[in-house]
Amino acid sequence: MKHLGKVIAIIIFVAVAVTAVNATFNKAQDAIRYRQAVMTLISQHFGSMGQAVKGDEPYNQTSFAEEAAVLEMLSKMPWEAFLYPESDRGKTKLKSKALKNKDDFMQAAQKFEDETAKLAADAKTGDLDAIKAQFGATAKTCKDCHGEFKSK
Amino acid sequence: MKHLGKVIAIIIFVAVAVTAVNATFNKAQDAIRYRQAVMTLISQHFGSMGQAVKGDEPYNQTSFAEEAAVLEMLSKMPWEAFLYPESDRGKTKLKSKALKNKDDFMQAAQKFEDETAKLAADAKTGDLDAIKAQFGATAKTCKDCHGEFKSK
Repeated sequence: MKHLGKVIAIIIFVAVAVTAVNATFNKAQDAIRYRQAVMTLISQHFGSMGQAVKGDEPYNQTSFAEEAAVLEMLSKMPWEAFLYPESDRGKTKLKSKALKNKDDFMQAAQKFEDETAKLAADAKTGDLDAIKAQFGATAKTCKDCHGEFKSK
Repeated sequence: MKHLGKVIAIIIFVAVAVTAVNATFNKAQDAIRYRQAVMTLISQHFGSMGQAVKGDEPYNQTSFAEEAAVLEMLSKMPWEAFLYPESDRGKTKLKSKALKNKDDFMQAAQKFEDETAKLAADAKTGDLDAIKAQFGATAKTCKDCHGEFKSK
């Protein structure tokens, strides 16, 4: 993992009293843009962590754990935006069945949240074998949800 | 502020040992996409909070504080991506002087981070007068930085 900027590490505790993060969306297009932005960040961090897991970049415990903590946070953010009424239309790959079967969609989303939380916990320990296994388990929840609810 | 999804509030403490969040970018376009995604989220949450501050939507202490905590987190995320080499070219409004005068850019970024942290602290207290004043102070740091480093 490349360190492109200087990092002066200090401990910041961000207390977030939520299971979901709720923004106010005034229209479906806002919700679509929001969730796509969250997914862009998730993809970037997960990809970046993947490079370390696969050995394409050096593994650094601190920065990996930082990214995993951010990923955990991000994993809670997009779901309300996905369920915004009529947000299956327009510039989106969301399949309509996500809105028709909200419980199924949220179950898939919850699995991703759960596995991401475990990945963040493993990342703190620095146990690379556990991290690798959990990274795979997390990736599976991405794939499963996309296979079910995302158009190609 | 509209509550579009159910929120079962529990306290989650996300410990993030960073002053900056570092992702691995393989090319300038990745960095541009990343920072634009962070800015989309910042804009959405700040706009959403603004509706509550201005009285266009009801003020709810808990959800406002949640959004402020997320905003504080987001405020730490995009700067490395802004300083990625040659990321002033392509689909971006970043002025080249941000990369030429990195210290000035980071000083402006730090002001935004600082004011956002104060806003999150005020949001926890629920003192709406203090929140309103601090919301304005935070908005000023957005405007100042955009005025200096963002093309129209």
